[in-house]
Amino acid sequence: MPGGHAEAWPLIKDIFQAICAKVDGQPCCDWVGEGGAGHFVKMVHNGIEYGDMQLICEAYHIMKSLGLKPDEISKQFTQWNNEELDSFLIEITADILKYKDDKGYLLDRIRDTAGQKGTGKWTAIAALQYGVPVTLIGEAVFSRCLSALKNERVKANEQLAGPNIVIKVENLKAFLNDIKHALYCSKIVSYAQGFMLMREAAKENNWHLNYGGIALMWRGGCIIRSVFLGNIKQAYECNANLPNLLLDPFFKKAIETGQQSWRHVISKAFLWGIPVPALSTALAFYDGYRSSRLPANLLQAQRDYFGAHTYELLNEEGKFVHTNWTGTGGDISATTYQA
Amino acid sequence: MPGGHAEAWPLIKDIFQAICAKVDGQPCCDWVGEGGAGHFVKMVHNGIEYGDMQLICEAYHIMKSLGLKPDEISKQFTQWNNEELDSFLIEITADILKYKDDKGYLLDRIRDTAGQKGTGKWTAIAALQYGVPVTLIGEAVFSRCLSALKNERVKANEQLAGPNIVIKVENLKAFLNDIKHALYCSKIVSYAQGFMLMREAAKENNWHLNYGGIALMWRGGCIIRSVFLGNIKQAYECNANLPNLLLDPFFKKAIETGQQSWRHVISKAFLWGIPVPALSTALAFYDGYRSSRLPANLLQAQRDYFGAHTYELLNEEGKFVHTNWTGTGGDISATTYQA
Repeated sequence: MPGGHAEAWPLIKDIFQAICAKVDGQPCCDWVGEGGAGHFVKMVHNGIEYGDMQLICEAYHIMKSLGLKPDEISKQFTQWNNEELDSFLIEITADILKYKDDKGYLLDRIRDTAGQKGTGKWTAIAALQYGVPVTLIGEAVFSRCLSALKNERVKANEQLAGPNIVIKVENLKAFLNDIKHALYCSKIVSYAQGFMLMREAAKENNWHLNYGGIALMWRGGCIIRSVFLGNIKQAYECNANLPNLLLDPFFKKAIETGQQSWRHVISKAFLWGIPVPALSTALAFYDGYRSSRLPANLLQAQRDYFGAHTYELLNEEGKFVHTNWTGTGGDISATTYQA
Repeated sequence: MPGGHAEAWPLIKDIFQAICAKVDGQPCCDWVGEGGAGHFVKMVHNGIEYGDMQLICEAYHIMKSLGLKPDEISKQFTQWNNEELDSFLIEITADILKYKDDKGYLLDRIRDTAGQKGTGKWTAIAALQYGVPVTLIGEAVFSRCLSALKNERVKANEQLAGPNIVIKVENLKAFLNDIKHALYCSKIVSYAQGFMLMREAAKENNWHLNYGGIALMWRGGCIIRSVFLGNIKQAYECNANLPNLLLDPFFKKAIETGQQSWRHVISKAFLWGIPVPALSTALAFYDGYRSSRLPANLLQAQRDYFGAHTYELLNEEGKFVHTNWTGTGGDISATTYQA
């Protein structure tokens, strides 16, 4: 998915399409847009890949903590790969879990320190720069950073207490299905955030991105290829101006179906002491995004109290006012500070 | 807390100290270090301030969702301000909550869209660049971004379902105490992350930072001034080479005392549909940091499967090996991809 040189694109496209994979007769590469749009979209793709991988790791962590053996976990992923989570990463996870050599399951012996080449980090930085809450990729990148502190973690493990609780469930089969929903709902949020980032970048850079086309292109040979991307394509086919993936009827329904499971798994993980930073930030985002009122009114009041940053009233958007909150002294309580 | 010109510092310090506040006879400003160290430390201070404010907002959001009135919530903050959370931000929050004009409580009428001047964003970007998991500040910055999407949220609120559950607790007094512990434990994690970032930056830039001195300086007039910073000062006084604040006996004990409350509040918030991105990322970090084994072994296996990125074995750190996971084809399953 190259970025520049629009005039040469028809020829380049023919060459690329002749040599690369096609899914359902659809191309795996396409012209994305002017001025670096292709590079940006490829970067977001990689960020989303970080998110997908972290979500799978957290699902694996929960199942492992419940006492499931690698081949049992592998079977779960295989089953999920025949359902809505059908994707390359779920498929290879099932392969990896069941892989054995003469010493037993290989995965159990691999060191838990993730490497990274930087594209996830770039995506998170871009999200911060554009002011778009791409929280799941952010948490996925930070999770890799934390995993890399292996020696510190081993020492901390000897000193820091966890909850005093036995990790078990009444109905294992039902709970495994809950985990699947948690993974799926979180994945929807992650892609919604990624597309929010592309939309904001497109707006600022005057790119004309074809979001359905991007989903289709990602489906044709990338690491994140999945049935899911076909659903995204359909969402933008139904409504090219869809403001957010979460509002598409198909994904809205999927979250309605899965949200109780999602909440259940996350609340249990926190009680059990299993870290689920990506699964939980996705749910926190969903709950924040669907909130017509967030507590940021207090934050604005604080900023006005200590720094006279002013605030808006609910019914007077765009008009900034200041209050002398203490009724004493000058207009600002903490006059030494402005930030 | 200026950054450069060591030679002029004694004079500058005298002038600053003559005009600025002192706490317990201690200076509010000090020489931090060479080559931008002062600027970096000031930036991290501001990032931590973003985190503190977001945590307070989430505690407020939970109490409000439980049906408490502004003056009742104000009383809680006032009470907490007499305990371990004693701080400027808690104090002004109590003031803000009880502030009334002729139309009633002002806070209820303030628009929930947070502004920002960029220092929190810079801190989060620095954390990503240095590879330090400063997740709480990251979530605090993204929360401001999400709050700014007010019009989108109002529309989403009409379409996206929440959980079908009544928000209530059996014992309100006990639960309010749980919220206090959740806030306090999360705050410990946030500062631990901030100090991790300063330590990594100091290592890379060859700064010799005095962490106890930094805590003391922040206590003397900054927005985040608190009794808590005195505890941090003591932690570094006991052990100047403390690898992580979480390992200091005082803070370790505080989390041991509070962690059941912390887990309880977060699990309830997710079941109730109240977004708590900062409170929850703090707990996820705590659980990750105290894990001698994280699921990043699977992540490394995935990277090796699709990109031959290689992995280490648990008992052979530093030796990178590759597996042909599929047993078919070449060494790499997805030969088209390397990232």
